[in-house]
Amino acid sequence: MNEIIDRRNVEFTLYELLEAEGLNRYQRYAEHGRETFDAAIETAHAIARDKFQPHNRKNDLNEPELVDGKVQLIPEVKDALDAFIEAGFLAATRDYDDGGMQLPAVVAQVCNSMFQGANIGTSAYTFLAAGVAHMLEAHASEEQQRKYMDPIYEGRFFGTMALSEPHAGSSLADIKTRAEPTDEGHYLLSGAKMWISGGDQEISENIIHMVLAKIPGGPPGVKGISMFIVPKYLVNDDGSLGERNDWVCAGLNHKMGYRGTTNTFLKFGEKGQCVGYLVGEEHKGLSYMFHMMNGARIGVGMGAVMLGYGGYMASLDYARERPQGRHPDQKDPASKPVPIIEHADVRRMLLAQKAYVEGGYALGLYCSQLTDIQHQDPDPAERERAHLLLEMLTPVMKAWPSDYCLKANDMAIQVHGGYGYTREYPVEQFYRDNRLNPIHEGTNGIQGLDLLGRKMMMKGGEGLKLLGREMQATIGEAAEVAELKEYAEALGQSLHRIGKTVEVMGARMAGGDIRLGLANATLFLELTGHTIIAWIWLKQALTAHRGLARAGEADQAFYQGKLQACRYFFRYELPLVQPHAELLQAMDDTTLAMQDKWF
Amino acid sequence: MNEIIDRRNVEFTLYELLEAEGLNRYQRYAEHGRETFDAAIETAHAIARDKFQPHNRKNDLNEPELVDGKVQLIPEVKDALDAFIEAGFLAATRDYDDGGMQLPAVVAQVCNSMFQGANIGTSAYTFLAAGVAHMLEAHASEEQQRKYMDPIYEGRFFGTMALSEPHAGSSLADIKTRAEPTDEGHYLLSGAKMWISGGDQEISENIIHMVLAKIPGGPPGVKGISMFIVPKYLVNDDGSLGERNDWVCAGLNHKMGYRGTTNTFLKFGEKGQCVGYLVGEEHKGLSYMFHMMNGARIGVGMGAVMLGYGGYMASLDYARERPQGRHPDQKDPASKPVPIIEHADVRRMLLAQKAYVEGGYALGLYCSQLTDIQHQDPDPAERERAHLLLEMLTPVMKAWPSDYCLKANDMAIQVHGGYGYTREYPVEQFYRDNRLNPIHEGTNGIQGLDLLGRKMMMKGGEGLKLLGREMQATIGEAAEVAELKEYAEALGQSLHRIGKTVEVMGARMAGGDIRLGLANATLFLELTGHTIIAWIWLKQALTAHRGLARAGEADQAFYQGKLQACRYFFRYELPLVQPHAELLQAMDDTTLAMQDKWF
Repeated sequence: MNEIIDRRNVEFTLYELLEAEGLNRYQRYAEHGRETFDAAIETAHAIARDKFQPHNRKNDLNEPELVDGKVQLIPEVKDALDAFIEAGFLAATRDYDDGGMQLPAVVAQVCNSMFQGANIGTSAYTFLAAGVAHMLEAHASEEQQRKYMDPIYEGRFFGTMALSEPHAGSSLADIKTRAEPTDEGHYLLSGAKMWISGGDQEISENIIHMVLAKIPGGPPGVKGISMFIVPKYLVNDDGSLGERNDWVCAGLNHKMGYRGTTNTFLKFGEKGQCVGYLVGEEHKGLSYMFHMMNGARIGVGMGAVMLGYGGYMASLDYARERPQGRHPDQKDPASKPVPIIEHADVRRMLLAQKAYVEGGYALGLYCSQLTDIQHQDPDPAERERAHLLLEMLTPVMKAWPSDYCLKANDMAIQVHGGYGYTREYPVEQFYRDNRLNPIHEGTNGIQGLDLLGRKMMMKGGEGLKLLGREMQATIGEAAEVAELKEYAEALGQSLHRIGKTVEVMGARMAGGDIRLGLANATLFLELTGHTIIAWIWLKQALTAHRGLARAGEADQAFYQGKLQACRYFFRYELPLVQPHAELLQAMDDTTLAMQDKWF
Repeated sequence: MNEIIDRRNVEFTLYELLEAEGLNRYQRYAEHGRETFDAAIETAHAIARDKFQPHNRKNDLNEPELVDGKVQLIPEVKDALDAFIEAGFLAATRDYDDGGMQLPAVVAQVCNSMFQGANIGTSAYTFLAAGVAHMLEAHASEEQQRKYMDPIYEGRFFGTMALSEPHAGSSLADIKTRAEPTDEGHYLLSGAKMWISGGDQEISENIIHMVLAKIPGGPPGVKGISMFIVPKYLVNDDGSLGERNDWVCAGLNHKMGYRGTTNTFLKFGEKGQCVGYLVGEEHKGLSYMFHMMNGARIGVGMGAVMLGYGGYMASLDYARERPQGRHPDQKDPASKPVPIIEHADVRRMLLAQKAYVEGGYALGLYCSQLTDIQHQDPDPAERERAHLLLEMLTPVMKAWPSDYCLKANDMAIQVHGGYGYTREYPVEQFYRDNRLNPIHEGTNGIQGLDLLGRKMMMKGGEGLKLLGREMQATIGEAAEVAELKEYAEALGQSLHRIGKTVEVMGARMAGGDIRLGLANATLFLELTGHTIIAWIWLKQALTAHRGLARAGEADQAFYQGKLQACRYFFRYELPLVQPHAELLQAMDDTTLAMQDKWF
């Protein structure tokens, strides 16, 4: 089995780049420090390696089946989840008083990503459970928390997000599931939900679906969406399980990858008896869901990173061990073949993978640390700064890794040659698993619209200004280091191009050219995404540059690798998206002007 | 099921762009014309649709199994191959006198690509059989042709190419399979071969492996490789089958895709009795194999194109039928959702797919037409011109479609959203099937080395000069058309960058910097590949521009589509590879300087 991650890089990112030890400046984390962080990480790594990773391929080869109305998973899934829950990871970020570890979000993210890297299919159940529990903690009534949230944290119930419908995926405005109020206070739901991950299984005592539905008479579109708790088994007041609720798993979706996570088509209320309980207020469902969704988007990006990481680790091992061919200036066929890591093109593919996965990883942890600041900092301005930055970075953190760490997986296959195309090696599964990530939790096209149409324009463009100031600080530091000056300049130019692009496009869109302005939003996302990752790499290079001064031999190599990956990203990658700026500023209408009948 | 291809585009490419009707100026094709070409194409399309396409998914879900030493395929494979053979496609390009259709290679390519698009797994058996038969026709003795080639053309025997070994894939210099001469004239082979497609099956009476092996005492490396006929069953002089030869199928490779084609690990001579017959002369095996390989590389590229085409057709249908969301300037949630083809980003993905697959298709047919000219033109200079152009274009035709039509498949999934990630739709299989193409018949990295290290440098750079003259002719024509002038200029600049790059790098490599010079060969392949496809698009745009003048309504739409796809390619795609030129000319050593221990 491949290494899940390079632990030296975890240390580097968490402690050297982000200086996460300093989080104990916040009251809530005062009792924490590197020792407690490392202990949690080590435990997560061990469980991931021992309980999650061994059945990753088995999950793939034995996808869930619907037998006599019950969804069957392989038994290893429950064993792994039990170990995860027993070690307390479901409540990693909760208060000590609530039985949690009170860990910073950034440390919890490191832990959670271990499970994603080990087995994305099985880890999804933990993400769904935690996401639902966190949302109930924020928005549900005390009674609801007692009946539905507490058992989730105890690991007895699991949860799902039930948003999409067969006819409505990206467009939640068009969902048709209805919730009729009754005199008893609950609602009766009817409708169908599609793509519900973890939608049915037999490994938890109960399943709590968080269902988006419309209450008749409410406003049209997303403003009429409410959120409901729809358990599999009704829960009595004493916490015991009552009747089976009136919904059925009408079918499983058979996916290309990500097969360990059962994905279901659910029908609610075919007998008119599907009980649901309103969460919070009527018609506020979408905002509650986004509470969960923003975290989920970061989680999707981290999953993509970790699948990429696994492929990088596997192909690095393979490249070191596989002898094949000779250098192009070595013509003697009797000379010994070299390990393929010696070939420049293989190194290019490894270096690209390193740049993608370590870049994505650092951005992911940076985002998580922003949530810590956003919630814990005593200074409201600092909290607001963290919140705004996180808003700007979320669409990038969802989309960029799901594009580029998938590309990393593609390269991991290529490094393996024919072997990488077979199921004897893990990389083809990573590639199939990772292909989901550009689709779910808002397609990458939608992330582009979010970034350009919403995030760049909100608050008079304050988000971009803030991001620009953060980048300029890094640029200023890097400009003082001879080795990094070239990159500092390139990043400055790219940032300037984004600013100019937003200025030009913003003016046109304000003048009414909305459709045309948003036509190339995906290109804008690529331009901004690569620029942000370049920034993250420059930050890493600065940290590595400082580290080199005091490094021993092994660490020297590690820091040199960081500097070289930074160089790769600035020389090979960042230039590729620069042409986008010109196209965007020209408000190019090629795609919009294309007509259906011309295809 | 999706359409395999847009027949209007076949007509356009073959008759309008390539003016293939004019091939009957050659003696050999004198009796041909559009009517006979169309008849062959229609027959191929019908058999592909009726016999190949229906079991494409079944092939995927029921990969070959090794049961009691026999390789089992689903029965539909044989039915399809029988129909293919019965219709005469195995001998499509052979002389009438030999029972063939005497079709030009370019028309045969159109026919063959229908089968690839319908079912890449099943079609591979026909490609292998035809490839082996063509090679035997060129290099084998009369007796060998009678005993092994004739039964292949009759459809009774199938063939394989047995090059790779478990330890030697890209580096054929290191193969270890030995062939010991005997007093009876044949050789005894011993060794192992890996990745042998069609290496064993029960659907043909016999299997003829074309095995590369080394005769003891020969020169080291590739200069000591000979080629052998190694049948499954020995063939008696009267053509009847004799003993089972001494090789076994020791295992099947379980692939991510392309599952209809069995892929085997073969062991030769475990009992010391594996009989092989030398083809041609000793130590000339590699050059014979390349006879087959160059055609196979074009074939791989066409396979990639056709998998891309299938995804394009499927996602175009889906985008026209699937309602979802509204235009960004339509805020009324009660308004009707639009078909997703209305969304600019979906159009971008469809337009990109169109540009990739129709660009690759046109290049593939252009290459095939060059083989016709190379073999049939009465003028030796013209034959040489065609030969040299084909040499230049082959690595691009292999690599470019296998990169970009795979990317097309990625976009086809994205257009389908979650549905595209399931096995209910064909696009996820196309994506998995197509992922093989950057690997086999020489990885794309090797195509880069071939293009930059060999093709650009051979004959004092005459190949690039020729390619440049061809492009300049197109540029000159396009510069006269107002609508195309912008593209003519862009193509000229890109061509100039290639020329400059080769000049700078060639001088450095001639000075000894070979390792560094070739370090970024993949980037050079990308730069050249995109430039060549841009050229092909400009040729298509010129043809469409001429066509528009005399077009009816339906044709107007078709030609407008061509012009828009050309615009897409020049505006969105060609700029993306221009930064490569700078990196290449700088002889950037980032990848080469990266050290193993730094990873």
